[in-house]
Amino acid sequence: MEKAIGVFDSGLGGLTAVKELSALMPGENIIYLGDTARVPYGSRSPETLVRFAKQDLEFFFRQNVKAVLVACGTISAVALPVLKEMCPVFIEGVVSPAAKRAAEVTKSGKIAVIATNASINSGAYCRELKSINSEFTVTEKACPMFVPIVENGYFGRDSKVAKLIVKDYLSEIKSSGADTLILGCTHYPILRPVIEEFLGDGITLVDSGKEAAKAVCEHIKNTNEENINGGGKNVYCITDEPSGFIHLAELFLNRKIGDEVKKVTLGEDC
Amino acid sequence: MEKAIGVFDSGLGGLTAVKELSALMPGENIIYLGDTARVPYGSRSPETLVRFAKQDLEFFFRQNVKAVLVACGTISAVALPVLKEMCPVFIEGVVSPAAKRAAEVTKSGKIAVIATNASINSGAYCRELKSINSEFTVTEKACPMFVPIVENGYFGRDSKVAKLIVKDYLSEIKSSGADTLILGCTHYPILRPVIEEFLGDGITLVDSGKEAAKAVCEHIKNTNEENINGGGKNVYCITDEPSGFIHLAELFLNRKIGDEVKKVTLGEDC
Repeated sequence: MEKAIGVFDSGLGGLTAVKELSALMPGENIIYLGDTARVPYGSRSPETLVRFAKQDLEFFFRQNVKAVLVACGTISAVALPVLKEMCPVFIEGVVSPAAKRAAEVTKSGKIAVIATNASINSGAYCRELKSINSEFTVTEKACPMFVPIVENGYFGRDSKVAKLIVKDYLSEIKSSGADTLILGCTHYPILRPVIEEFLGDGITLVDSGKEAAKAVCEHIKNTNEENINGGGKNVYCITDEPSGFIHLAELFLNRKIGDEVKKVTLGEDC
Repeated sequence: MEKAIGVFDSGLGGLTAVKELSALMPGENIIYLGDTARVPYGSRSPETLVRFAKQDLEFFFRQNVKAVLVACGTISAVALPVLKEMCPVFIEGVVSPAAKRAAEVTKSGKIAVIATNASINSGAYCRELKSINSEFTVTEKACPMFVPIVENGYFGRDSKVAKLIVKDYLSEIKSSGADTLILGCTHYPILRPVIEEFLGDGITLVDSGKEAAKAVCEHIKNTNEENINGGGKNVYCITDEPSGFIHLAELFLNRKIGDEVKKVTLGEDC
């Protein structure tokens, strides 16, 4: 079989990037890794995140992938430099592509970023934006409740809980005057309707998983590594039992994937 | 040093049981284990939970404890029989002590239980209550958002988010006519004021961690294993970095514990 592209996240969020990759390059084989036995990653310490991320990446080495997409905002922000050093193939996270896109989109130079605690504490998004243009004004906000509310079904446009928490976290951003908002965690696009309703029309949302998928696609095309035989086979590997994952992933991807899901074991842990 | 009592939970919740144990037997040494690198446990599969629980218990074997209190509702509900088989010393979880207390308290025989997804799916609380009196009417409700809202600070009596989610989860229980409610997860007592305000006076709340601590205390006294030398030294062992834990644990225990916290490594994982 042609070499696959490896995509990983702590849980379901990275499927936003898989969806985009499949749309851009339908012939590619994709191996998805979701560390569902240890989700969520967003509030863990940098030391623990680096340890988990190395185990995630080593899994892909055993699968002999041709490129790796880190579709987890937290790992992208906290551990990408370490992963880049140990990775023999192309690897990209969500931070740099999202920052580039935000820099293209903004007119006022006022950019906001929402992400997990660990991502915001790392300062990675702010550093990346300032390295593009040191005059950007960056407002950052950690939104640690967004992943739990998404995973527990409180994300509909009419959810009172989602509305309250979105208001609580994003009021500061609304009044900051930013014209661009990076959704720095791949779970967040699921809350997009509630976020858009609260923030109104004056702000453009940047989907970090989608931008990362575009960057990987560009690399594959530029290096002539495209799978010219086509076929586009996907495998979903997760570390907890598949049943709960399959149900939510199918809702999310809007197609059946039951036959493509298997449970896997990662390295030594905590 | 005199042998300690081991107390474990996925995160902070089990400190409710530590507080109670220390109050009942101030002379005892306590080793607390919080698996903070893999918290929360409540939505994981039984297979993964059994694996994690065995690693948690093996940690206590290396510490040569004289008794183990499983201060995690999820592990108590899902894995206690497996742990009992492998444990050479007395081990107790929260399910049986909480059920016994609820059976003493109820007048109407209508008992409600709230706990994590995994605990409710296991049916453990219902089985335990029915084994005491098969005529009990048991209403069960999984409350998967309670742990995230507690861990993110939405638990004050005036928190709109806490009020909305409590109403969402507990309306069924309010209309069930139950006169007794088991708080089947050791995080839930932190939401007690909001829960009591919503349910009103007609229902008695049973704190499962507190009841489990009483059961362990009774065993220690009955078997004359009390630490007659006194001293009461506590050690808090956690699997992620200590900084975040120390802050919340000190708020929770209402005393300084910085010097008593250390990071530990458990067995092979996921």
